[in-house]
Amino acid sequence: MTHNMDRLYEAVAERGHVCVGLDTAVDYVPEKERRAAASDAGAVLSYNKAIVDATIDIAACYKVQIAYYEELGIAGLKTYAQTLKHIREKNALAIADIKRGDIADTAARYAKAHFDGEFEADFVTLTPYLGMDSIEPWFQWAGKKGKGAFVLMLTSNKGRQDFEELELQAAPGSKQKLYDAVGEKLSMLAAASPGKSGYGAFGAVVGADPKSPEERENILRIRETYPKLFFLIPGYGAQGGAAGDAALLLRNGNGGVVNASRSIIRAWASGGENPNADNAFAAAKAREAAMTMRDAIKNAP
Amino acid sequence: MTHNMDRLYEAVAERGHVCVGLDTAVDYVPEKERRAAASDAGAVLSYNKAIVDATIDIAACYKVQIAYYEELGIAGLKTYAQTLKHIREKNALAIADIKRGDIADTAARYAKAHFDGEFEADFVTLTPYLGMDSIEPWFQWAGKKGKGAFVLMLTSNKGRQDFEELELQAAPGSKQKLYDAVGEKLSMLAAASPGKSGYGAFGAVVGADPKSPEERENILRIRETYPKLFFLIPGYGAQGGAAGDAALLLRNGNGGVVNASRSIIRAWASGGENPNADNAFAAAKAREAAMTMRDAIKNAP
Repeated sequence: MTHNMDRLYEAVAERGHVCVGLDTAVDYVPEKERRAAASDAGAVLSYNKAIVDATIDIAACYKVQIAYYEELGIAGLKTYAQTLKHIREKNALAIADIKRGDIADTAARYAKAHFDGEFEADFVTLTPYLGMDSIEPWFQWAGKKGKGAFVLMLTSNKGRQDFEELELQAAPGSKQKLYDAVGEKLSMLAAASPGKSGYGAFGAVVGADPKSPEERENILRIRETYPKLFFLIPGYGAQGGAAGDAALLLRNGNGGVVNASRSIIRAWASGGENPNADNAFAAAKAREAAMTMRDAIKNAP
Repeated sequence: MTHNMDRLYEAVAERGHVCVGLDTAVDYVPEKERRAAASDAGAVLSYNKAIVDATIDIAACYKVQIAYYEELGIAGLKTYAQTLKHIREKNALAIADIKRGDIADTAARYAKAHFDGEFEADFVTLTPYLGMDSIEPWFQWAGKKGKGAFVLMLTSNKGRQDFEELELQAAPGSKQKLYDAVGEKLSMLAAASPGKSGYGAFGAVVGADPKSPEERENILRIRETYPKLFFLIPGYGAQGGAAGDAALLLRNGNGGVVNASRSIIRAWASGGENPNADNAFAAAKAREAAMTMRDAIKNAP
């Protein structure tokens, strides 16, 4: 079978590992453009289009974080839909960062909502707490339309220690943690959906922010333990992650995309807000930031 | 402090434990009404309003499952917003069943989206996988506007065994499971938001579907261990749960609401679809089903 994870693999091989995160708060848009726009949601849409168009040959994919659009209500969700549409019309890959997780009947509704119709994306993000019967209705779309997903496994926020990193009793002495139990289940899905790239249709969200040599070793262990899981790697840039850390989660130079949001889409304001900045300026700065990031990951030791 | 969990406590004391689940798929609406409606989303809105108006003196609250609305795209989300508005205008309590869970910055955006503006609800449902820093931005709204939440703890689907029920190493011999680790953290939030009812602003989703005397004992243990957590109890009716099971999770006759969706909103078609059925008929049947359920829980041994 072939599926969107194969397409993502090809995109990484061609253009590098950068996933541009369109977590576009309206105050990320240059003030001049905001004032000229008919609405906040309209300003965000024009901004997103400018960023996408300026990075299309550099980005492996785009991740659209729905929270930033829900915040603007119905108008925001129209912008969300139109942003996905713009990305997909350019033949680029769109990850809907929606982190859904619900029981089977409900999951089937959600999957239809986000893999078909107005909100169609190429990938979604999912949360595993409820168990694999909350993931399977989405997984059926891997067969139907080649859709993919990234399921939360080990995130890069401090709160990961609360539950994700709890040690399990199941295999005494193994020090297996909750996120490994998730990884094992995801490996079964990957085995059931082998793509020509070697990766399964569903991958995992795994952060790379090692604070010690032990944590670094553990990240390398995770990469080795789950060779069929393509990783969506968050936490780059504004969240503190570095290119060398993210590179630990790659496999033969592929097998992962690294998400950066603010460090790209707010690059134009990194040295203070220029009151004359417009979308073209912001897009050019985003392109520069994405290129620098791409090269830093490629050249990471 | 006083918050929405206090209002829910009062509603249960006055009207019983029924939470009407508005998981309204368009094919739950009588065909006659669907054909007369201008759109699917319009049909669902009229249907929801009829159900709410017919159960307003019987239901403790309403739970609106956003997946069923997302499935209908932007038009569906307008119906979602208008359904919440209708419930709240009647001075009834609305739970937005959105099961969100994301890192802190994003969670703050989500919280604004669902506790304010077009999609404002009285409560939301949340998923804990990412840890407590994904819950805290929501919790700030308990202080600001008295908002509440139900965080997934132990659900009623089969997949709960995959992760929720895994035994933790942390306290050897204690057989503590992941959901208890979640419960402990939620108890801390509850202690930080004592309402006049004795319950915290944030409660938990806990299912009651015991398959053995041991599981029954465990449900009673959960109720005893978390006296400050108000429970949202799913799985009643179409999902197989019974009144006696749900009652195990109550405390002095309060402290929980029991959600039923299809068994109420599809009651009109339970003996086969009557082609002459209209919204008034469906609403009357929903009222009957809600009353029967209310009484069954009240009179449970």
